[in-house]
Amino acid sequence: MFASLFTKRQPKVGARPGTLVIPKEAEKPKIRRISYSPEEVIDEEITDVAHLSEAFKEGQISWVDIHGFGDRQTIQQIGDLFELHPLLLEDVVNVPQRPKTEAYGDQILILVRMVQVYESGEIDMEQVSVILGKNWVLTFQEKSGDILDPVRKRIRNKTSRIRNSQSDFLAYAIVDTIIDAYYPALELLGNQLEEFEDEVIMDPTPELLRKLHRMKNRLVNLRRSIWPQREAINRLVRGDYPSISENVRIYLRDTYDHCVQTSEVAEMYREMVTGLMNTYLSSIANRTNEVMKVLTIMASIFIPLTFLAGIYGMNFDHMPELHMEWAYPMVWILMLLTAGGMLYYFWRKGWISLDASSVENEE
Amino acid sequence: MFASLFTKRQPKVGARPGTLVIPKEAEKPKIRRISYSPEEVIDEEITDVAHLSEAFKEGQISWVDIHGFGDRQTIQQIGDLFELHPLLLEDVVNVPQRPKTEAYGDQILILVRMVQVYESGEIDMEQVSVILGKNWVLTFQEKSGDILDPVRKRIRNKTSRIRNSQSDFLAYAIVDTIIDAYYPALELLGNQLEEFEDEVIMDPTPELLRKLHRMKNRLVNLRRSIWPQREAINRLVRGDYPSISENVRIYLRDTYDHCVQTSEVAEMYREMVTGLMNTYLSSIANRTNEVMKVLTIMASIFIPLTFLAGIYGMNFDHMPELHMEWAYPMVWILMLLTAGGMLYYFWRKGWISLDASSVENEE
Amino acid sequence: MFASLFTKRQPKVGARPGTLVIPKEAEKPKIRRISYSPEEVIDEEITDVAHLSEAFKEGQISWVDIHGFGDRQTIQQIGDLFELHPLLLEDVVNVPQRPKTEAYGDQILILVRMVQVYESGEIDMEQVSVILGKNWVLTFQEKSGDILDPVRKRIRNKTSRIRNSQSDFLAYAIVDTIIDAYYPALELLGNQLEEFEDEVIMDPTPELLRKLHRMKNRLVNLRRSIWPQREAINRLVRGDYPSISENVRIYLRDTYDHCVQTSEVAEMYREMVTGLMNTYLSSIANRTNEVMKVLTIMASIFIPLTFLAGIYGMNFDHMPELHMEWAYPMVWILMLLTAGGMLYYFWRKGWISLDASSVENEE
Amino acid sequence: MFASLFTKRQPKVGARPGTLVIPKEAEKPKIRRISYSPEEVIDEEITDVAHLSEAFKEGQISWVDIHGFGDRQTIQQIGDLFELHPLLLEDVVNVPQRPKTEAYGDQILILVRMVQVYESGEIDMEQVSVILGKNWVLTFQEKSGDILDPVRKRIRNKTSRIRNSQSDFLAYAIVDTIIDAYYPALELLGNQLEEFEDEVIMDPTPELLRKLHRMKNRLVNLRRSIWPQREAINRLVRGDYPSISENVRIYLRDTYDHCVQTSEVAEMYREMVTGLMNTYLSSIANRTNEVMKVLTIMASIFIPLTFLAGIYGMNFDHMPELHMEWAYPMVWILMLLTAGGMLYYFWRKGWISLDASSVENEE
Amino acid sequence: MFASLFTKRQPKVGARPGTLVIPKEAEKPKIRRISYSPEEVIDEEITDVAHLSEAFKEGQISWVDIHGFGDRQTIQQIGDLFELHPLLLEDVVNVPQRPKTEAYGDQILILVRMVQVYESGEIDMEQVSVILGKNWVLTFQEKSGDILDPVRKRIRNKTSRIRNSQSDFLAYAIVDTIIDAYYPALELLGNQLEEFEDEVIMDPTPELLRKLHRMKNRLVNLRRSIWPQREAINRLVRGDYPSISENVRIYLRDTYDHCVQTSEVAEMYREMVTGLMNTYLSSIANRTNEVMKVLTIMASIFIPLTFLAGIYGMNFDHMPELHMEWAYPMVWILMLLTAGGMLYYFWRKGWISLDASSVENEE
Repeated sequence: MFASLFTKRQPKVGARPGTLVIPKEAEKPKIRRISYSPEEVIDEEITDVAHLSEAFKEGQISWVDIHGFGDRQTIQQIGDLFELHPLLLEDVVNVPQRPKTEAYGDQILILVRMVQVYESGEIDMEQVSVILGKNWVLTFQEKSGDILDPVRKRIRNKTSRIRNSQSDFLAYAIVDTIIDAYYPALELLGNQLEEFEDEVIMDPTPELLRKLHRMKNRLVNLRRSIWPQREAINRLVRGDYPSISENVRIYLRDTYDHCVQTSEVAEMYREMVTGLMNTYLSSIANRTNEVMKVLTIMASIFIPLTFLAGIYGMNFDHMPELHMEWAYPMVWILMLLTAGGMLYYFWRKGWISLDASSVENEE
Repeated sequence: MFASLFTKRQPKVGARPGTLVIPKEAEKPKIRRISYSPEEVIDEEITDVAHLSEAFKEGQISWVDIHGFGDRQTIQQIGDLFELHPLLLEDVVNVPQRPKTEAYGDQILILVRMVQVYESGEIDMEQVSVILGKNWVLTFQEKSGDILDPVRKRIRNKTSRIRNSQSDFLAYAIVDTIIDAYYPALELLGNQLEEFEDEVIMDPTPELLRKLHRMKNRLVNLRRSIWPQREAINRLVRGDYPSISENVRIYLRDTYDHCVQTSEVAEMYREMVTGLMNTYLSSIANRTNEVMKVLTIMASIFIPLTFLAGIYGMNFDHMPELHMEWAYPMVWILMLLTAGGMLYYFWRKGWISLDASSVENEE
Repeated sequence: MFASLFTKRQPKVGARPGTLVIPKEAEKPKIRRISYSPEEVIDEEITDVAHLSEAFKEGQISWVDIHGFGDRQTIQQIGDLFELHPLLLEDVVNVPQRPKTEAYGDQILILVRMVQVYESGEIDMEQVSVILGKNWVLTFQEKSGDILDPVRKRIRNKTSRIRNSQSDFLAYAIVDTIIDAYYPALELLGNQLEEFEDEVIMDPTPELLRKLHRMKNRLVNLRRSIWPQREAINRLVRGDYPSISENVRIYLRDTYDHCVQTSEVAEMYREMVTGLMNTYLSSIANRTNEVMKVLTIMASIFIPLTFLAGIYGMNFDHMPELHMEWAYPMVWILMLLTAGGMLYYFWRKGWISLDASSVENEE
Repeated sequence: MFASLFTKRQPKVGARPGTLVIPKEAEKPKIRRISYSPEEVIDEEITDVAHLSEAFKEGQISWVDIHGFGDRQTIQQIGDLFELHPLLLEDVVNVPQRPKTEAYGDQILILVRMVQVYESGEIDMEQVSVILGKNWVLTFQEKSGDILDPVRKRIRNKTSRIRNSQSDFLAYAIVDTIIDAYYPALELLGNQLEEFEDEVIMDPTPELLRKLHRMKNRLVNLRRSIWPQREAINRLVRGDYPSISENVRIYLRDTYDHCVQTSEVAEMYREMVTGLMNTYLSSIANRTNEVMKVLTIMASIFIPLTFLAGIYGMNFDHMPELHMEWAYPMVWILMLLTAGGMLYYFWRKGWISLDASSVENEE
Repeated sequence: MFASLFTKRQPKVGARPGTLVIPKEAEKPKIRRISYSPEEVIDEEITDVAHLSEAFKEGQISWVDIHGFGDRQTIQQIGDLFELHPLLLEDVVNVPQRPKTEAYGDQILILVRMVQVYESGEIDMEQVSVILGKNWVLTFQEKSGDILDPVRKRIRNKTSRIRNSQSDFLAYAIVDTIIDAYYPALELLGNQLEEFEDEVIMDPTPELLRKLHRMKNRLVNLRRSIWPQREAINRLVRGDYPSISENVRIYLRDTYDHCVQTSEVAEMYREMVTGLMNTYLSSIANRTNEVMKVLTIMASIFIPLTFLAGIYGMNFDHMPELHMEWAYPMVWILMLLTAGGMLYYFWRKGWISLDASSVENEE
């Protein structure tokens, strides 16, 4: 499960830098171009990369969205068209990389990790590469299906701020949408944690232990995406890159705040799940203690009595007690006294309480 | 419980920035204006925001206090009247945000978390947004009822320093009052911890484990509010914002000290509760050990005796011992020696002590 | 116990800054003035603050030492006489504050925590406030009785360096004496830890668990005083305050070294006590294991034998073995073989050793 | 195992700096020279160091690769030829040193740790020293056999970037290849961890505990190589060394990213293995609890019944029940009721479930 | 054991700074002077400090080595002769201080901790104070016997670099030799750890627990010496002190690397010993589980059988089974079936395996 997070797409050791690693089962690229100016919006599927270059016009912002890397040549053509640095292209295709922002000339590469929550409660992470150019934004995703439709909708809205801003605002809108998607994912995990909390005291089964363990790994993993994202977005806010305007930086500051908040919540959850695992152990220890008490009480009461019965089951010729008339009732009295003494002893030790919670009603 | 701390009020993923998320059950806004100059104080409920703008006068400091966000239009009107940045308004309404301070032009937004301790021992946290303008201070709270009455009282006092200072001192007074309220909350938690300390050794029940676990989560949570607050107030002290005068910064230094102190105490408590949970486990292990000793002593003494009794309960025709006259007493002597040997052995091992604490009085 | 460390003296939430919180049971202030120049020393109790101002003379250094805050007016008079900032006075009286150094104009406030070790082994901490002025030093303590007598003695010694230096050297001498008092306190704790170390393996009682737990809390607490002290004194060394001369800073560097050393020892002790608590748990687990082995060996040997005896205690009419002459000895042989087999099995498992340490000598 | 990681090759305490420590069993040095210019490539084994100096030509980049240190004189000759600082040569030969980069004049020493994964799943680490000179690169390895063949192959390719760049690019290519080899090693560890995850809940044997323990030590160890490497390469990226060109620094930034990624994965694995060890303990506690339940149920049901049977096995003359006709069936009914009561009690406690998972089908 | 590490030599609380604390049992000082120039070496015991001053000559470097502080006057004379600052002399004599470097005028005080490994495996630490003056080096040690003989030997060697360098190189050589002595100490600890690793799984005795605990304390302690040493030597490398030449700083960089390496190894060992203690607990839990299984299997098989035997040992007049001819064999068959059923149940649960490892071969 977690090994796959980083190893599957590394180029072979010693490969020349910039080598693109494309697995056989990769989806064929689908390209969608949205170009807009305050006046008009063009939204089309591009099937031939050659057509892509014709589509650019003065005064328009273009968002070229590529899903799937299953065709090396297409990817390379796009790389050539936008004059992408080979190392940039490597980071984009050989997913997943660590979230980061990096400048190549006046292009800015923003790598973020998109989180998707499925009905089943599973959480999936996928790298989205956002490349910000002068009047265009490129986004690369490995699989089709994403969470960016609200951005597309806002572009179609004539009065939206995106429509009337530069490409840096579009890049911000995309990144912000991706970061905001961490909230429902964390909410889901939070709800699961809450369920575990009750179970861990009431019903600490091995199955729960397994769930806690998985939850912990998931949180360790999640944190590993969120933390570098925090730093990456901070670099955008700090103004390391001149092609992001002061105004957009104020918006990015907001995105950064969300990043910090999600990272802190993930951290808090991780601490809580560790706490739950310790509580689990204590809870099991508690139950073993309870089991032992029952055993000890039962054994301590009946073993001496059985011994007494055994005594008078012996077949010696000369056992005077056997022939006394009051001996049998005396033995019963002795037995009841012994049992009562043990019960009193356990009650004084606090092992049995009188309010029907423990063993005494069974005898 | 903890999931609700950050998720309920996030706008939908991909919503345009500045979207206000107002839940249906939100309280209708109540607005209270306190304007004061060294000479006079006006304290009134405002029902119509339109009237608010008329109320400002030269030479007066105004504190506009809004409780409840249940009317988007009113909130927006206030935002327009005070020319609040849409991102600022988003942070104010979409509670809870991470505590922070941020400048928007010459307005300063201070987000802090107010703590309220109820009779029942429950601790509740609510975001208070303080916005400091040129000659006014805005405060936003989600629910009515707060802990700021002492500040209002000090304003009414003609000789108080607030009355004779600028709006930055008012903002300081509000923030300081909110921070100081952490002391009684921490005192409450400290008292609970003290109780747990005795119980954990004397009476480590599953119920106590649950309480410890909850206490830990509460402290993890509390720390998550206190730590960013510390940084937020430090930025005010350091002088990042020119609209806060040197003189007020000396007072804020004091508030910052209190912040640091509360954060350290919360941290110390968290460490202590972790220690308590470990002690709990050791305490349970101790008790199981004690239970096992009782069982082992009882079983080790009586099982061999029962075996001996069993031997002479056998019905073989040829068991010469059965017919010897002194055999029965001899068996008793053998049994007593065996039992005595076991007792001596356990006493030497330190499992039973002679001072009435353990098992020997039952036999 | 630990709640009291910070909460008892906070002013009411929302009180105006500078409010002095004086509990009813506070001691009445006792004031002692020591004025000295290289030529002469005056050492007197001051009963009326009004007299205090008359006592200052050109060319003399004065040390005014106040014990007890039980009279608000006196404290306020002293504050007015030395022109102390209200926030400074608040920090001095509303003990305990976090150790720190702070400049108010050309006065420097140094808050440190004095440690006192009692015969009984208890460790007590009390805030000492040292205020360094131009040619005077003020010290405030809550209770009478302190550890500063050696300083007073050195003042009386005509050739001492204090006598021939400025007020900053006096302040250094006081702070240095207070820091040095941490050594015997830590030595005491170190000795206790050493005792616990042996006990935890030899005799892990619940009482020891309680002691370890208390020791841990004490160390957590101690660290909370020592760490900020370290930073506070570092600020004096770094030269943030011009009224401390270069020469005295070399001496303070020495004090800082001691601070660092004590903080590291406290940290090391805390780590050791945590280690001891883990060792305690392992030690208990060990003992339970040992108890279980005894039970298992006893039960595994005698339960099968008792079963065998039970077989031939049955009253069936047709049990041919019962009537065979050699049957009874055969059963004995069978029993001895069974017991021997079990013993061999346990010996091979390493549960019983032949050198008299375990169970086999009891049978 | 881990002691050997750093101690075997230290010079004797107090030896003069620059002392080369060459163990007896060291391999004899094998020297391979690859010189290339855009036009030609020369690749030859050098047997006599004297020949090495003749081989350098204007306009060529030379890579001299030395495997094995088993001849002090040869190493010293190489040191003299390239004018290596004695401390540099000490770091190269007295392996392993901590990964680092260091400048000696205009030579840069880059110490990295090469990881090799064997078929058996063992991971081996070996120091590689890369020394970057004006138009040459020296590499030193202790043993023959390495992972640098892809670099050699790329040199032979006329169109490769190495062939057309300066020596700093060659050094980058070597370091990059070594860092990339961490990915398969980490993948291997990740796969093992995944296997352990299932086992720890399903089948927590002592053997697994041993494996987990070893895995943890291996990761602690691995991290100790990776972390300083991260810093070492960062220094190359930051531009501390002028002989590395701006262009190569962009490539090194990529290598640095990989370093960070591997260090984070190693850290994550370490956290996971710690989690697994805790889960192991909980899992064992679970199993003990289950074992105890079986014992307690069996003992609690049959011990009272055996007692009842014992009662009527007694041989008293006057036991009226023995002579009643319906007494024997009554005793059976009493026994069944007792057993049923116990079963009901345990079922209500949740210790036995009705779906065939537990004990009840055995009776 | 560890309390003694810092407390024994503190001056009384409040003593004037510069007070030398000399315990009664201290060794009398032995002074040895080695003066050398490239041409000659003088090596002599000094019995009278007055002679020491005569011994200095132009163009010679002198190393004055003092062992033992048992004569206050001699120490003071040396202090006066070399014009040592009283605080410097205090740090030198009142051992142990925290390792550090400090400048007093143009003298540099270097405090390091020398480690000595004894045959018995014990590790001993002692403070060595190195004071670097213009053309002399002073070293102070508490006890006679040290590890610096190799340095003395190198001085006698005419071609050595020490002989031909300034006093700063001599100081470096001494410090470097002391740091290098940590390697054999760590190797010893590493070997012990390796032994513990096997034992902890194979044979987790209480004695081993005690050893692990001691090892942990030793490592905590060791780290406390090594860490400040690292910082101390870094200050020498960074060039804070002008009297250390650029050339010697390159050598010190090497010493610093060794410091870092030893500190990391100590840290790694500490982590490993913590891991071992956790493994120990799991290992004990494992064994208890195994013990419990044996008990449960034995008890679960034989207790029901004993009950069955008990039934037919009852003496009721009307027990028809007793008189049936085939009843006795039937009971045996029933018993075998019951035992077989239990064994099958335990085998299915995985508690007994068929390959002779467990209990079934004993019955």
